[in-house]
Amino acid sequence: MQINDFLNHTTEWLKGTGPHSDIVISSRVRLARNIEKSSFPQWANKKQSKDILDIIEVAAKRIDYLKETTIFHLADMDAVDKQFLIERHLMSHEHAQKTDSKAVIVDDEEIISIMVNEEDHIRAQVMQSGFNLFEGWNIMNKIDDFLSQELPFAYSSTWGYLTACPTNTGTGMRGSVMLHLPALVMSRQINQVLAAISKLQFTARGLYGEGTQASGNFFQVSNQVSLGHSENEILENLNGLIRQIIEQETQAREIMLNQNRAMLEDKIHRSYGIIQNAHIISSQETIELLSMVRLGSDLGIIKDMDRARVNELFIMILPAHLQKLEKRKLSSQERDIKRAELIRSRLGK
Amino acid sequence: MQINDFLNHTTEWLKGTGPHSDIVISSRVRLARNIEKSSFPQWANKKQSKDILDIIEVAAKRIDYLKETTIFHLADMDAVDKQFLIERHLMSHEHAQKTDSKAVIVDDEEIISIMVNEEDHIRAQVMQSGFNLFEGWNIMNKIDDFLSQELPFAYSSTWGYLTACPTNTGTGMRGSVMLHLPALVMSRQINQVLAAISKLQFTARGLYGEGTQASGNFFQVSNQVSLGHSENEILENLNGLIRQIIEQETQAREIMLNQNRAMLEDKIHRSYGIIQNAHIISSQETIELLSMVRLGSDLGIIKDMDRARVNELFIMILPAHLQKLEKRKLSSQERDIKRAELIRSRLGK
Repeated sequence: MQINDFLNHTTEWLKGTGPHSDIVISSRVRLARNIEKSSFPQWANKKQSKDILDIIEVAAKRIDYLKETTIFHLADMDAVDKQFLIERHLMSHEHAQKTDSKAVIVDDEEIISIMVNEEDHIRAQVMQSGFNLFEGWNIMNKIDDFLSQELPFAYSSTWGYLTACPTNTGTGMRGSVMLHLPALVMSRQINQVLAAISKLQFTARGLYGEGTQASGNFFQVSNQVSLGHSENEILENLNGLIRQIIEQETQAREIMLNQNRAMLEDKIHRSYGIIQNAHIISSQETIELLSMVRLGSDLGIIKDMDRARVNELFIMILPAHLQKLEKRKLSSQERDIKRAELIRSRLGK
Repeated sequence: MQINDFLNHTTEWLKGTGPHSDIVISSRVRLARNIEKSSFPQWANKKQSKDILDIIEVAAKRIDYLKETTIFHLADMDAVDKQFLIERHLMSHEHAQKTDSKAVIVDDEEIISIMVNEEDHIRAQVMQSGFNLFEGWNIMNKIDDFLSQELPFAYSSTWGYLTACPTNTGTGMRGSVMLHLPALVMSRQINQVLAAISKLQFTARGLYGEGTQASGNFFQVSNQVSLGHSENEILENLNGLIRQIIEQETQAREIMLNQNRAMLEDKIHRSYGIIQNAHIISSQETIELLSMVRLGSDLGIIKDMDRARVNELFIMILPAHLQKLEKRKLSSQERDIKRAELIRSRLGK
């Protein structure tokens, strides 16, 4: 697989399928693993990092379950390609900062991604469209089993899996769910919901993970603690919390439809009208308008809307995707114009 | 003619025809006249006012040139009907305040309107679409001649025609031109233009005359002084000023097209997208968006746009027009919804 092949592919997490996909964009399970008796990436020297990359690359190649994957070495990639993988949620922003002996292994369906020499030697993630944490965990569990047959993981019978940052020690697992919560935001109930999430030792973040702001009414909810509970307990707790949030969003949507239908229709149709007609538009505004269009489609206010087409736009309009589509570097001003062109051609009247 | 018949009629000043109709909406000439030896309306008692109305009504009926007119007695009209005539610029807001012995005579084409017992006994106006002051003056001159054959006007050889307010004394004439100046507003040159207008002893007002704010980039420019110059001199001066403003707006449009085409297209298409899709919209926002749509059509950015249809919307969306269309009273909230419905049906995709 070449990196450009992903351009014509709808990434797993934006397929718009799976349970509760009107509210849950995607579910993600991530594991942190390290090779025993080796320095964590931050403290490893050049040689050590290179060795870690080599043994993980060799191990991955031996695993039949991972045979439809491609390894991308960050040192060989330009800035746009790296940003492209970040925008597709296939690797973290942090991973792209220093590129020496770093890689990411991605499967053709973009369900699995394994970062090598990020904060830990291995950061593996499995993405699923919709509310599908346990299916994600099943796949992740298999990958973990296969990797552990090939690689000696750093493990303590007291602490569990050892990780560079103590917050990941234990299971090394993080489950997270990307939610679309426009009705809770519009009805101003979102702050209560976020407070409850934090009280229950879960975290809510924006579309692009740690440190990013919630935009377009998207919230990524994940467990904070990975120690002292089994993977299943952690995922059960997260699952229960998400069920409650889905219920609250559903109720908020119903109340809004019953009590403020005209306001809601106005907001949704205006957003659709603007996005179909703009000639200059930022990513931020696009995401906010698409959020309203998606809500309109979910509530039946906008008819005949292909959710996959809307979902795809969420990443196609991002800087690296736009530049790959255009096959050249674009200034910020040029991108705002090309973005509007792309949206008009995809959501055209 | 019944008042409701006007609903299906495009009023003269919004026809979108005539010279320079891309920038000049309409031209208006107004005369103030009073009957000699009679108190001005403000100081007249009931009996005197009634007598004035009677003699003017009788005179108008005798004038063949005015045979296709209807007289509306304000005392017989409800609030919506009065507001309806104000919105069509057929009478002033002030005229509708106290209705006793007040009337307005309107011709079927809505070119001529004669208010009886407004600030003066007679306030006659002639409207023309586009930049057409002298054609308006020709018609007004005839009406003045016919009226003066029937009625003894208050006239002083020193001062000219006597009026209730000294600013109208002399010719009693005011010429005014309604301009659409979006490029001068967007390029922030408008304040200079307004300062020049005021320095030259002309006045610029908003869409609904004295005391109203400029909205939708519409400006009504008229002479302040009516004393000391002939009607022709006053109109020539006004005409020259308007020519200069047209020239400046034309240049500003060209510069914007050359230097900021993307920004301009964005603003115009967004406005069009919003107005075609909104479900709740105020008059003020509608007028501002229609201003951009009109500009888009004038610049060829929006194709296949029927200017008369856009122009008609400028008044169809106003409160009294909406209520007459719906044949019932509407609250402000109901109007905002009905207004959006009307626009969608008229500018529908």
